[in-house]
This record gives sequence, C-alpha cells and structure tokens, in this order.
Amino acid sequence: MALLRRLALDREMAGSLQTQIAGQLKKLIQTGELSSGERLPSTRELSNSLQVSRNTVVAAYDMLVGQGYVEAQLRSGFQVCRATQAFRSLPVASKVTRERKQTPSQPGVPVPFRPTQPDVNLFSLQIWNRHRTRVLKRGSCLLHYQSRFPVGLDELRQNVAAYLRDSRGVQCQWHEVAITNGSQQALFLLANLLLKPGQRVYMEDPGYPGARNAWTHAGATVIPLPIDEEGICLPEGDSQCASLMYVTPSHQFPLGTCMSLARRLTLLRAARDAGSWIVEDDYDAEFRYSSSPQPSLQSLDENRRVIYIGSFSKTLFPALRLGYVVLPPPLVDSFAALKSIADDYSPLIDQATLASFLESGAFYAHLRRCRKQYAERQSYFLQLVSRFGLPLRFPITGRGMNLVGMLPGNFNDRVCSDRLRLAGLDVPPLSHYAVGPTPPGLLFGLAAFDNRAIQRGIARMAPVLQGKGMDRSE
Amino acid sequence: MALLRRLALDREMAGSLQTQIAGQLKKLIQTGELSSGERLPSTRELSNSLQVSRNTVVAAYDMLVGQGYVEAQLRSGFQVCRATQAFRSLPVASKVTRERKQTPSQPGVPVPFRPTQPDVNLFSLQIWNRHRTRVLKRGSCLLHYQSRFPVGLDELRQNVAAYLRDSRGVQCQWHEVAITNGSQQALFLLANLLLKPGQRVYMEDPGYPGARNAWTHAGATVIPLPIDEEGICLPEGDSQCASLMYVTPSHQFPLGTCMSLARRLTLLRAARDAGSWIVEDDYDAEFRYSSSPQPSLQSLDENRRVIYIGSFSKTLFPALRLGYVVLPPPLVDSFAALKSIADDYSPLIDQATLASFLESGAFYAHLRRCRKQYAERQSYFLQLVSRFGLPLRFPITGRGMNLVGMLPGNFNDRVCSDRLRLAGLDVPPLSHYAVGPTPPGLLFGLAAFDNRAIQRGIARMAPVLQGKGMDRSE
Repeated sequence: MALLRRLALDREMAGSLQTQIAGQLKKLIQTGELSSGERLPSTRELSNSLQVSRNTVVAAYDMLVGQGYVEAQLRSGFQVCRATQAFRSLPVASKVTRERKQTPSQPGVPVPFRPTQPDVNLFSLQIWNRHRTRVLKRGSCLLHYQSRFPVGLDELRQNVAAYLRDSRGVQCQWHEVAITNGSQQALFLLANLLLKPGQRVYMEDPGYPGARNAWTHAGATVIPLPIDEEGICLPEGDSQCASLMYVTPSHQFPLGTCMSLARRLTLLRAARDAGSWIVEDDYDAEFRYSSSPQPSLQSLDENRRVIYIGSFSKTLFPALRLGYVVLPPPLVDSFAALKSIADDYSPLIDQATLASFLESGAFYAHLRRCRKQYAERQSYFLQLVSRFGLPLRFPITGRGMNLVGMLPGNFNDRVCSDRLRLAGLDVPPLSHYAVGPTPPGLLFGLAAFDNRAIQRGIARMAPVLQGKGMDRSE
Repeated sequence: MALLRRLALDREMAGSLQTQIAGQLKKLIQTGELSSGERLPSTRELSNSLQVSRNTVVAAYDMLVGQGYVEAQLRSGFQVCRATQAFRSLPVASKVTRERKQTPSQPGVPVPFRPTQPDVNLFSLQIWNRHRTRVLKRGSCLLHYQSRFPVGLDELRQNVAAYLRDSRGVQCQWHEVAITNGSQQALFLLANLLLKPGQRVYMEDPGYPGARNAWTHAGATVIPLPIDEEGICLPEGDSQCASLMYVTPSHQFPLGTCMSLARRLTLLRAARDAGSWIVEDDYDAEFRYSSSPQPSLQSLDENRRVIYIGSFSKTLFPALRLGYVVLPPPLVDSFAALKSIADDYSPLIDQATLASFLESGAFYAHLRRCRKQYAERQSYFLQLVSRFGLPLRFPITGRGMNLVGMLPGNFNDRVCSDRLRLAGLDVPPLSHYAVGPTPPGLLFGLAAFDNRAIQRGIARMAPVLQGKGMDRSE
C-alpha cells in the first residue's frame, strides 16, 4: 500500500506516537491524498510497517474516528469518512501560519523576595486530595451544571461565614457570602455593579494595583489619598466624599499600617453620611505574629456600608482561585445576578473540597503551621539585614507576608529594584504601587522563602544595595 | 472547674464534636465569661468530663489557637489569648441575626428532559484523576500565582488550538486561544471589550439567553432576527449592520438548524463590509450522529472577523468551568488584559489536567463514547414518541444534545411546560428562548438520560400532552 510509505515517525519529537500517526493521516485526508471512502491499512499492517505496537495504531485510529475523519466498518476495518470531501473546499490549517510565531512558556516558581506569595510547600496536597476524594463520592451532583448556585455552594458559604464571624468578627449570614474566582473577580464585579463612569473612588496611595485596575476599567476616577501612621487620610472638609472607598485596614497594602480605631470610625461616618460604599480588602489578616487579632472594619459598621473581601489564595494556594465577598443585604441579589452573567458560577469540585477542608479544621491547622513559619522567616530576615548592615529600615514588622524596607532618602527605588532584578531577585520598588510621590522603599515578600533562600537572597542583595549609584541623581 | 459544667455536647447535631467544643468555648470567650489570660482545663480533664477522646479536645484547642482565641503555654497547657478582650467592645455575631433567614440547599441532578446536560456518568473521573495526579507531580508551579498566564497555560492553549484546527477547521495559532471560565465568561468579556452602550447586536431568535444577557448587560441593543431553513436572516438592504452578530451556525440554539454555506458567506461579507464582529458559538458541534462534520464558520473567514467560542462543559463536565475563545489577532492582547483585571486567570490544576487529558487522546475516546450513547438515546426517544403517538414533530434530528419538538399550532407551549413540570419533568417551552413570536414547541435534552429515564419520562409526558387544555385559548 503506497500510503504506508508516506508515513514516517519521528521518535525524538514531542507528542505521543499515536498523535503523530493521527496527525499525518489527517493531513493526507485534508489535502485529499487519502480520499473519502478509501480504506485505511489494517491496524496490524500499519503497526508492522511503522514498528509500533498495535495499541498505538488503534489509539490513533480512535482519535480519527472521534474527530470525524475516519469511520469504523463492521468487520472490515477503517475507511476515510465520506464527509471529508468538504475539507477540500476549505483553507487548511497550514495556510494560516503567516502571523508572528510565539514561543510557549512554562509556569515557574517565585524568585526571592517576590511579595505576597504564600509557601505552597507548606500546604498538604495529600490532605486536600483526601477531602476531594470524599466529596466526589457523594455522587455526580458536583459534575453537573449548577446554575442555581452562581455565588457558590451553600455549604461553602456557610463555612466561610462561620470562619469570618469567628476569626475576623465579620457580621454576616451565610447567604450574604458570595464565592468568587479569587478576590480579583470580587473587585471587578463590584466595580461593574457599583461604579458609573466618572464616579470617584478613594484609594490609599501607595495601594493595590489590582484594585486600581478594576476601578479604572469601570471608568471611575481614582483619587489617591495619603497614608499616615493611623491609615488613610480623607480630604479635610470633604462634603462630597467618593462613591466608593477601597481600604486595607488590617494591614495596609503595601506599607503594613494597621488603621487606628479613630480613623476607622471616621471612615464609617463618612460612608454613612455620603451613602458611599467601603470595600475592605482583608488580604492577609490571617498572618499576625506578635500583635493582637484586629477585628475587621466591617465588624464595627452598624450601617452595612462595608463590603468585605478576601481569598484563599494566600491561606491555601493562589492557583485555587477561590475568594469571597461579604455583601450588605441590598447588594446580595444584584451581585448574584451579575456573577451569573459573568461566568455562571465557580468550579464546584474545588468549592466542595474547600467546604470540607474548612469543616474538618484542617484549614486552621494549616494556618497555624504557616503563621509559625512565616513569623520565623520574618525575624530571620530582619536579623540578617541587620547583620549585613543593609541600608534598610523596617518601620512595621510582626505581621503579614511582606515587609516594606525604607531606603535612605537619596536612593532611587526603581534603580535599586532594576539592579536587584539583574542579580536574580524580584523586589519591586514602593513607587511601583504609588501614583503620587513616595519615599524610596522596597517590598519584600518573605512567606514563600525558607531560611536558606533568605540567606542566599540577602547575600546577593548586599553588594547591590551597598554599591554605588543608587541615589536619585542617577 | 465551673467551666466544665457549661459545656454540653449534642451528638445528634451536624458538625464534628471538635467543632462543637471549639464553638462553645469561643462563645464563652466572646461574651467574656472566659476572660483573657484565664487557663483552660487540660485536654485530659476536658476529655474525661465530656466523654470524648483526647484527640478531639486537642483538635478543638488547635482550632482555637489557629483562630487567635487561645494560646498554648509551654508545658502549662492552654490559656485564653490576652488580645481577646477586644471582643467585648465589638458587636458579637448573635446581634446580627435580625435579617431574613435563608435555608441552604444542596446541588441536585437534572430531571428529564432538561436541555444541554451531558451525561456526566459517562465521564471517567478515574482517568481524569490519573492525569491530575501526574501533572501535580511536576512540582509546585501549578499551585503558585501565575499571573503571567491570564488567558491560560500555554500547553493547554496549544492542545486546544490543535483540537480546534483538526476537528473544526478553525484557523488559529495557539496564542490566539484564550482559556475562560466556561463560554459564559468569554461572552461576558467580549461584551465588555467590544460593545459600547447603545450599539447594536444581531441575534438569532429564538436564541441563547446567556448570550443575550451578556450583550444586554453591556448596554447594547439586541436585535432579534428570524431564522429560516438556512439560518439567521439578516435584514434586507441593511447598510448599517450591527457592531456584533452572535450566531450558532453548526447547530442553531435551540432550533438545531445548520447554517447553509450561502448564508455563511452572506454573513461573512456583511461583517467585512461593516467592520462588525461575528461571535460563533460552537456549543455542541462535537455531537453529530448521521450528518457530515460541518467545519466552523470561522474556517471560512478570510478577514478574521469571526470570534470562535466553545467550552468543555458539554464534552467533559459542566462544573469544570473551562471554556475557550479563539481571537482575531487584533483582540488577543486586549482580551488578555481584560481577563487579567476580571479574575487574574482560571484555576491552574484543572487547566494542566485538561491539557494532559487532551494530549493523551483520552478526550477523543470519551467523545466517541458520548457520541454513540447520545445517538442511541436520541433515536430511542424518537421511537417512543412515535410509539406513544405524542403530538410532537421533530424537524431536525441526528445531531446535538437537544431536540426541538414542535407542538400543534393551537397549543400553548408555556402551559405545556408548566404542566410537565408538575409531572416532574423539566422541558422548557421554545417561547422561553424567543423575544418575538415563535410557533409552539418544547426543548428536550436527551444526552443525560439513559433509556430507562427516557422511557419513564415519556410515560409521564404522554397523559399531559394528550390531555385537554393545551391550546392557546386557555
């Protein structure tokens, strides 16, 4: 059979042999070299000719049957599907490769001291998978469409509500909790729901770029406000307020300031008087090492103007993409309707697994383990910084996954950060997070890096920070 | 110790004993009955007093330590955390329960003949989990933040591109494929990206409500267009066209019409001339039983005005929430930027698992199995309908997961559907999908229901459809 000579396998190539065989046959069908109705060689013939196992050929034929190129004839092998003649009037795939070629890349692991990265190696996938197996045994419900649950499985919403009530003092009933794809989706949907183009949003400056992007994308005008040692500073004599205020009271991102009670009350009063919404992003409140557990801003709010958001990205692992928002009662239904239009609902198996993981207490055990490690890493880092005599000052320590290190006033933090990048370190400048001017500083993430990585990172950092040419005059 | 008498376990209650113990202690701390610094009973004392295992008490204490209520003292047991006095100045959770109570519910399975439901029991979770285990062995990359991949892992985009090129003739390079949370997110993001308030969208009528919701939410004006036997009918002498046209050419949703080649070319010309975008939703093209594989509209388009979308909800299982969109080159970057603001990226473990599942050929084997079953179910259903002499006419058969059954002209399809619901059946009326008038019909999903379920469903349906009072005069 002439066809057999047209096929050649490249055993060095990526992709399985069966994919190669199927691919080559498909090309021949698309170009008409194998015409519709033509019989294919038997699986035995082809496996002999190509020197591959017969199973490989069967699998390749199965792929072609699945894709409609080939049909199985009862007791007489395989033939090219009669409908494939349509391909000849169509542009074939090879015509299309004119545009720029792009090289695919692989996901990697964070480099020291990339901020806000949890140590995913502390997370026990084994325990997680045990919960996953358990919930999958409940039957097929978790595989079906469940469009009735746009804001999450009720059992997960209940467990999240209990967790937030207990650990953060959040005032909520379970049906006010909405599950989102990470907190970023909560920000995006809230922007979509609450903001009209031209409306004003107050944000701490420096602040979280992911939130700023959400507000800006909705057409809002973001007004950056300075931060003092008590937290965000509202404009004096501001009768107008903003439609929305976005704050990180427990642990300001990125500076680390904890908002004072007085400032919290000022904020709540302003929101009540102007009918504004406050979005409280409690992004890493779980990680306190020396200070007392600060309850959330939401817990102080008698008027339900605070929308509370958070995620499991930092407490479990980021790629999970499960976050939550606690909605004031008037927003519950409209948020659910929007989530439904946005993407129906979030993946169910992960939701049910998380519900079980929370219920079992495994979540709390994991948090404890992380808290202990992160605290140790933070103090080890600070110890080394001081031993190496690095020109860094850390005004706020003892909580969170990151630390802000302030540089001497004449340093240029962007230049610093660029040079650190050349040394293989990922340490963003404080000015990256700011719209207005900020004193020079660097943001260090410490949670994801063990003592050895911290030691190596600091050893690489020292010559850069102690070298010349870091000042603004550059 | 007086405290021991305040604790009582209810072994009938839902939730583990450790959760009950932790919960009761927490209440006592929140109300100040256990004050800060106070020592808790030893684990031995408490386990004796409550008649539970010591491990249960240890687990309860661990939860409380994790939540910051209790601290472990080296060699001297546990005490109430000093910071808990803050709770007394705060509203406690019990204050908040004034609002309406909501009863949580459980996800269920679809009832016959709910449309567009795949049979998830045909899906081998075992094989899927094997791929999942394999990709998780690659190291921790899949758990970390991977914000560099807003539109999906490159390996998945490559495998999806190969699948679409091969099976649907889609012209694309892998970097033009974006992974979304089901096709609904693709619709929502496209609406956000391409439509300004007041712009016009053409849609088939009847059509897919999920798409209509996305366009309407973006402020667009949806113009419903009739469908004839060749597909959507563009308005005659329409020089203006719409900004966007949403079509389901392979298998019109819900009628099942396959758009003729002539109509496809008319559509492509109109889009080219007006600079409109066409969104081709190829929602169940994989399921053809008797007819030829129709290549996609996108494959005919020389001008790259077609945006091609689809999902794995129907070919694998809906709760996976992974879909895709093939973007014309000018939209690639802006779509990725928007996806990044919308939710960073979709869950990674599922993405990598799916990439491996596609690569291995398991996907094609699964499709084949489904196609065979769905074809058999469709013909069994039609056989029974005719045997029972039901007043239904099926103009289009031989493909897809659903069938439209036309009712006699004097029937009211909403009345029919309501009565069928009372008989335990989920069969939406055709008019549910339409803005304008449609002849009366019912939409039957057959894929998810085996012969026994079909038989029972028809037996329940017969007395309803053959009963009195179905006509419009009601």
